[in-house]
Amino acid sequence: MVDFAQVQSKTGFGAPERFEGEVADCEVLGRIPKDLDGSFFRVGGDFLYPPMFHDDAPLNSDGYISAFRLNNGRVSYRGRYVRTRRYQNDLAAGRQLYGYYRNPYTDDPSIRDPEHPNLRTVSNTTPVVHGGRLFTLKEDGLPHHIDPLTLETKGTWDFDGQWKSQTFTAHPKLDPLTGEMVAFGYEASGLATNDVYIATVGSGGRVTHEMRVKTPYMTMLHDVAVTHRRFIIPMCGYTTSLDILKAGKIHWWWDNSKPAYIGVLSRTGDGSDIRWFKGPPRCMMHTFNAYDDGDKVVIYAPFWDGNFFPFFPNTDGTAFDPKRARAFVRKITIDLKSKGEGYEEEILYPFPVVDLGKVDPRALTLHNRYGYTSFADATRPFDAAHANGLAQGRANNCYGRFDFHTGKFDAYFAGPTHTLQECSFVPRPGGHEEGDGYLVGVAQNYAEMRSELIIADARDLAAGDVARVILPFRTSAQVHGIWASAQELA
Amino acid sequence: MVDFAQVQSKTGFGAPERFEGEVADCEVLGRIPKDLDGSFFRVGGDFLYPPMFHDDAPLNSDGYISAFRLNNGRVSYRGRYVRTRRYQNDLAAGRQLYGYYRNPYTDDPSIRDPEHPNLRTVSNTTPVVHGGRLFTLKEDGLPHHIDPLTLETKGTWDFDGQWKSQTFTAHPKLDPLTGEMVAFGYEASGLATNDVYIATVGSGGRVTHEMRVKTPYMTMLHDVAVTHRRFIIPMCGYTTSLDILKAGKIHWWWDNSKPAYIGVLSRTGDGSDIRWFKGPPRCMMHTFNAYDDGDKVVIYAPFWDGNFFPFFPNTDGTAFDPKRARAFVRKITIDLKSKGEGYEEEILYPFPVVDLGKVDPRALTLHNRYGYTSFADATRPFDAAHANGLAQGRANNCYGRFDFHTGKFDAYFAGPTHTLQECSFVPRPGGHEEGDGYLVGVAQNYAEMRSELIIADARDLAAGDVARVILPFRTSAQVHGIWASAQELA
Repeated sequence: MVDFAQVQSKTGFGAPERFEGEVADCEVLGRIPKDLDGSFFRVGGDFLYPPMFHDDAPLNSDGYISAFRLNNGRVSYRGRYVRTRRYQNDLAAGRQLYGYYRNPYTDDPSIRDPEHPNLRTVSNTTPVVHGGRLFTLKEDGLPHHIDPLTLETKGTWDFDGQWKSQTFTAHPKLDPLTGEMVAFGYEASGLATNDVYIATVGSGGRVTHEMRVKTPYMTMLHDVAVTHRRFIIPMCGYTTSLDILKAGKIHWWWDNSKPAYIGVLSRTGDGSDIRWFKGPPRCMMHTFNAYDDGDKVVIYAPFWDGNFFPFFPNTDGTAFDPKRARAFVRKITIDLKSKGEGYEEEILYPFPVVDLGKVDPRALTLHNRYGYTSFADATRPFDAAHANGLAQGRANNCYGRFDFHTGKFDAYFAGPTHTLQECSFVPRPGGHEEGDGYLVGVAQNYAEMRSELIIADARDLAAGDVARVILPFRTSAQVHGIWASAQELA
Repeated sequence: MVDFAQVQSKTGFGAPERFEGEVADCEVLGRIPKDLDGSFFRVGGDFLYPPMFHDDAPLNSDGYISAFRLNNGRVSYRGRYVRTRRYQNDLAAGRQLYGYYRNPYTDDPSIRDPEHPNLRTVSNTTPVVHGGRLFTLKEDGLPHHIDPLTLETKGTWDFDGQWKSQTFTAHPKLDPLTGEMVAFGYEASGLATNDVYIATVGSGGRVTHEMRVKTPYMTMLHDVAVTHRRFIIPMCGYTTSLDILKAGKIHWWWDNSKPAYIGVLSRTGDGSDIRWFKGPPRCMMHTFNAYDDGDKVVIYAPFWDGNFFPFFPNTDGTAFDPKRARAFVRKITIDLKSKGEGYEEEILYPFPVVDLGKVDPRALTLHNRYGYTSFADATRPFDAAHANGLAQGRANNCYGRFDFHTGKFDAYFAGPTHTLQECSFVPRPGGHEEGDGYLVGVAQNYAEMRSELIIADARDLAAGDVARVILPFRTSAQVHGIWASAQELA
């Protein structure tokens, strides 16, 4: 028997979704572009059972994948839990058996297994399609192989035994020129280890190249960047140790004294060429993109000033500081000819954004112009009468197209009772120019307690959406989403 | 592509549900009685596509069945559209092909077939379990056979060709003494015919007896009553004709000049013994129960003063009168020894109720004491701040146990932001006394935009519910529901 009464966000939009369902033919406002043939996959977390500990991270919630299938102007929807081992064990027991986020020492004795922490992954972070296969990902375990139509879980995926890490990142990079997937795993050899496994998977789904490196200190490596030639590892002050975990504590702690590092190495070497560049403490979570500029590497990223996860404590005992938990669009330039260990950082826009940035996937690894992410514009209309708990100012009510070359930006506004989740860029079929396509993403409509898929013309965001797909219910929050064309899935 | 913008209740609780889904293990407040092992099935209507005509009846919405499965203190939930021929044709076309409620002459030419109006049924009214099989019912077509676990539609059911009517009522009666299902069909030979087919289906699922009668005028026969010995047909002023239907009009019209009739005949004769008793105009929709009292027949029913369907026009051109659209708990006594054609009617409670009345199924056909239905008590607390469009006074916020013997009643109050749908009575396993059991029914929680299954002790309604099963979304409105024990479905 389940009782969410002790969970902080048991009601309203923050309440767990907890159901699996489908809509055969979605209601649509506007017109679905007829040339869109494919699926928008979303992955997020949704607690099947309340977490064991009240101060646990929402990152510990059960993986849930949903898909909007667009074809010939019609849209169907489906959502399913990922059938991880944890999901199955919990459902059989009828209760939460798993303890803190990524701390197996806190699990129920019936399933406790610290030697295989990857078996307790919730696979709740990212969908990816590569080699015609759909996977859900979370950085503490292996990919889960998902049927792209039914969203049924087929099992975990280790690339026929070729993947040599216990873990697989939530942020593999797809090289648009080679069709390769460049991926990695950290804590690759077990809990609190600082070794990183990096591998390239060819378009046929086979591991074609691999490398191993170690980070200057043990840390979270959530995202990386990949250029046409190089692999880039930003890392920052989240740390842990086996002692911390064995003591039954939270996995990650933020160390304000730790410098940020950015590692650069060739994609095709053995890892021994890695160079670490050092900067002031900075929380480096997601990247937009990176590219080679001769002997320089340029990284676009919405990095944070400091710890932005309020549920990961500071090691120095200070309280969480919301002023540091702000992300800005940054351009980082690393000169590989320099003898020093520093790098240049420039803030491109003076206002904070959400750090879930995307680029046109055709421009990934290349010298791109545009980045896309959501942000809160408190000057936009706000409907307090139908806010249902939504807070003005905190609401991510806009998608922005950020022009890294000119410093300009264009914005899409979702509405006075809406918040926006991460957007994804969909290249217009037949188009070739960077930025020619659609932005898609889910809006939460607080007034109606429902979710809506937004489809906007990425080159005319101010014009509003071209279509909205109505779900007659609220979905739980997406972490990351991707667009996959029908062709990619065929 | 679907656009519900033209549908009156496109938003809020009245919006179509439109999705199919399941909850593996529902959140529960309180404790599910461990002795409850079975399913609460609900059937209602939910437009897959908006109706073709804005003034159509909501009765024309697509059939949807849902089930709460209770076992060992845990609850799972599932909801599915009934896969009627209409559902399949509409989904394939991507639009509404069917015209007015029960008027095939208004259908799209691609599927128009007035000779077989039963093939366009939406099967959206009642679930019933008999002979180990689950069916969904609507009075204008045949039953649809449903898998009780998956809720998949297996097809229509004509009792191996033994059912000799185009139609099958939404209100068959299950005789607790014999295990028989006594059922009927009206418009039995086609649109606007006034012949009625009545048949008994034995516990093994075979038709064991049948009769045919005609009504004094062509009318809607939504519900009947059955005593241990007799079949009772209440009928009232809803009429139609082939001319009306061929003119493309709404099916039912309310004729204020038509008297009410109640037909009484033996369950085991050939129908020729039918006697019609006549009363003033009265809208006779649902019954609680009826029983034999020597040469008298007693009927308990929450009948209406007049037309209560605002979408069915009055034939005299007068506007819909909300003052006549009120149902009261009535006791009707028919003296079969009398030479006259009248009957006695008594109003047992002075306030209006919802006409969806239930009794303990062990007392059906017998001299019962209690009836159960919902009603609006405007003196109860009302939370205007979280009403979300809910109107005080109109809200059916209470379940009542009506003691027909003493005139007393006990009430269960659902809460200041809740409305209640039809309740069902669940006999307590091992209990024998009438009224020993639970009331179950779904409440709509407007504050949270979600639905909740209420489980209350039927002998202590004032104590509140013993458990609430939380759905994390709003379900569409149920018309009728039933409880079926695991044993009945085995």
